[in-house]
Formats: sequence, C-alpha cells, structure tokens
Amino acid sequence: MIFRQLFDLESSTYTYLLADAITGEAVVIDPVLEQNQRDSRLIKELGLKLLYILETHIHADHITGADLLRAETGAKTAVAKTSGVECADRYLEDGDEILFGSHRLRVIATPGHTNSCLSYYGEGRVFTGDAVLIRGCGRTDFQEGSSEKLFNSVRSKIFSLPEETLIFPAHDYKGVLHSSVREEKKFNPRLNESIGLDVFKGIMSALKLDPPKKIQVAVPANRRCGKTNPA
Amino acid sequence: MIFRQLFDLESSTYTYLLADAITGEAVVIDPVLEQNQRDSRLIKELGLKLLYILETHIHADHITGADLLRAETGAKTAVAKTSGVECADRYLEDGDEILFGSHRLRVIATPGHTNSCLSYYGEGRVFTGDAVLIRGCGRTDFQEGSSEKLFNSVRSKIFSLPEETLIFPAHDYKGVLHSSVREEKKFNPRLNESIGLDVFKGIMSALKLDPPKKIQVAVPANRRCGKTNPA
Repeated sequence: MIFRQLFDLESSTYTYLLADAITGEAVVIDPVLEQNQRDSRLIKELGLKLLYILETHIHADHITGADLLRAETGAKTAVAKTSGVECADRYLEDGDEILFGSHRLRVIATPGHTNSCLSYYGEGRVFTGDAVLIRGCGRTDFQEGSSEKLFNSVRSKIFSLPEETLIFPAHDYKGVLHSSVREEKKFNPRLNESIGLDVFKGIMSALKLDPPKKIQVAVPANRRCGKTNPA
Repeated sequence: MIFRQLFDLESSTYTYLLADAITGEAVVIDPVLEQNQRDSRLIKELGLKLLYILETHIHADHITGADLLRAETGAKTAVAKTSGVECADRYLEDGDEILFGSHRLRVIATPGHTNSCLSYYGEGRVFTGDAVLIRGCGRTDFQEGSSEKLFNSVRSKIFSLPEETLIFPAHDYKGVLHSSVREEKKFNPRLNESIGLDVFKGIMSALKLDPPKKIQVAVPANRRCGKTNPA
C-alpha cells in the first residue's frame, strides 16, 4: 500500500492519501483547499486513480479541497449521512466500507466533536479526525458538540481497537505525526483510562476557547463540499 | 520497529526517532533544541533507552538538541569525523554502522550541502539530511558547500539505493513528509535523472538565497553539540 501523510502549516491539518500500489486506486482523507496544487500534483505523479475524497467531519478551521479535487479527478466525495450535507456523492454510516484496490477502510461513527464525525479504520491505522488528537481531543463547544458523546466514542469505539493500531488525527499543533491506541489509553491527559466521564466533562467545559478564526467562512463552505461561492 | 517522525514548525525541521520494539534501544536523528521537552517526554513514555543522537550535519538553521538530550539520557552524540567537531562521543565515516536492538543504520557520506553531511540508511528508509529534499535539495553556498559534490552524492549514493527506499529529509517547507528514491529520480526538478552536472550547477548558482536567519548563532552552537553557552 502507498501511504502519505501531508500537513497544512496554516491550519495544522493532516491530509492522508492511501492507495493500492498495484491498481493505483486511491482515497484521500480531509484535503485542504489551499493545498490543492500540492495534492493534485502528487496524485498525478504517483499515477493514482482517486476514487473517494473522505471527510472526517464538517471542519470549522479550514475549507475542504473536496469539491476542487472532485472536479479535477472525477472522484466521489463522501461525508457522514448525519451531516445533512447535500453536495456529496456518497453518504456514510457506521460500519460502511470504503474499498480501493485490495484495501478497505471501515467507517466508524465517532460523534462528539461534531454530531457527524467519522473515523476510518483499516490496515492497522485509524484516522480519527478531531475525535482523538495526540494527547488531546477535539473541542465540544460548537456544531452540536457533546463531551458525553465524545467520551463514549473514544472509549468504546477507538480504544476498543487493537492497542498497536496507529492513530492518525486531523490535526497536531506540536509537530507530532501519529500516536497509537496503546499510547492514548495511557497518556492522553483528557481521555486516558483512569479518567471518568464527569472529570472529562469538567476538563472540556473549563477550556473556554476562542471560536476558530475561520468558522464563519469554513463551515458554510464545507457544507457545500468546499465550494467557496454559494452560487 | 518503532518509528516516529516529528516536526519543528519554526525551522521546518524533521526529527526522527527509531527504536527496537522489543529491547527499547533507540536512536534519534537531528533533534531540535526547542523541542527537547516534547522529544524527551516521548522517549520516556515509550520506555525507550536512547543509545545515540545522530546528526546529519552541522545545521545552520536551528540549534541541535543533542547536548541536552545527552545530559538527560546518557546517550552518545555522533557526528561526521570530517566535521572537525570536538564535542561528540562518536565520529562517523562512510560505511559505519549504528546498531540498536536488532536494527541497524548504515552511514553514507553525502557531502555537498556541507562538506561533512551524512545520510543514514536502513529498514527501507534513508534519512538524507539536507542532501536530497522532497523535490529539492540543500543549498550549497556556505559551510564548504559544493554543487558538484552534492550532485555526485545524490546521484551515486542516494539514487543507487533500491527505488522503493523511502526518503526522509531534514526539512520540508510544503508539508510533505517523505518521498522515495523512485519519485526523486523522476520528479526532483533539480536532480532528476535527465539533468546533468552543468545544468545542476547553473540551477544552484542562480538561487541567490539570503543567509539562514540563525546561522551566526546556530553553527557555533552546533559545533559545541548544541551547547548555547561557549563556557
């Protein structure tokens, strides 16, 4: 399998490109609009046929590159059915599978950061979006966020995966690229196994974060799959 | 094997941590002083025994975290014998081997960006420092840099490795994390196989880059293995 992790320095977003080394069939997870040229060129250079553009959720901090990449490659965009978004080509639910070449990713519903967050699991890796971050987690104070739902998603859905599973999140702000289920169960300061729901809810409600700078632009655009112009 | 790539957002430097999953014996390549806390904590959390701190070269853009990490862990620092640096515990030459657990890295002398640049090869990966970057290469206009030497190092030492070898450089400025020998032989705009030495020398001499911002501080400190105070 071909696996590439890519980073957007402005929003600290990770984009992932996975492909079958034999057939070239590929999927991309969470592309960033401003990185379209980089991503598009890499897909061409590697000779890949992009099948799906997968979103982990409706992002509030950057605009997705999905629509532009779809126009360029003919790939299908896919988001959670529960997102209410109408621009996608495929709507995903817990347990669905994404196939590319001889590889597959399983869709895991992990609501909490937003109500329609998805993780993608396969090949010893889980792409957790903003559900579990490395030694952290996504905030739960907008877009129907819920600390209780996030706690349950991480504990019952992510931490029940094999401990050696590598965790690839949607962001990291300290230059750490991945983690593992084993590490986060032990060392995640908000969600390690010694922490109960009430403590977690207390941690999350005490954060008092400023809204993401781009939320007013990004969320509406992402509900159009990344089209910046409503028309 | 445990493998972790880490990123310093200020200098766009990649640090690498490699360890034997059974014995915990580990090496780190090109740590950044400002990231000491992050790196040190990760080494502890993973329960690793750090044996070596390896430098690809005397960096001009950041101060190495080698001396501090050595003091904390008891690991040995290692640099090129040709560097003339006197603070290290081990001096490396082309063909030397670094052993950790059941793993090994082979030292490859790849001068050109500086006269004492080393690459480290093993386990299907090559850590190229500033010799080959992703779709680029290190500059050759200071620290005894030589376009001719760099051209020869890349073409004869790096591009002769198996094509599927993954290239992990010391830097990337576009959020790309790794490449491969196959990709760089085809797509590196300065060093792909259709480019001759004279064209490469022309490309490099036309760059006219500003000196790295930290060169006056970083190079002297790095010649002391990262001690910021000469005393």
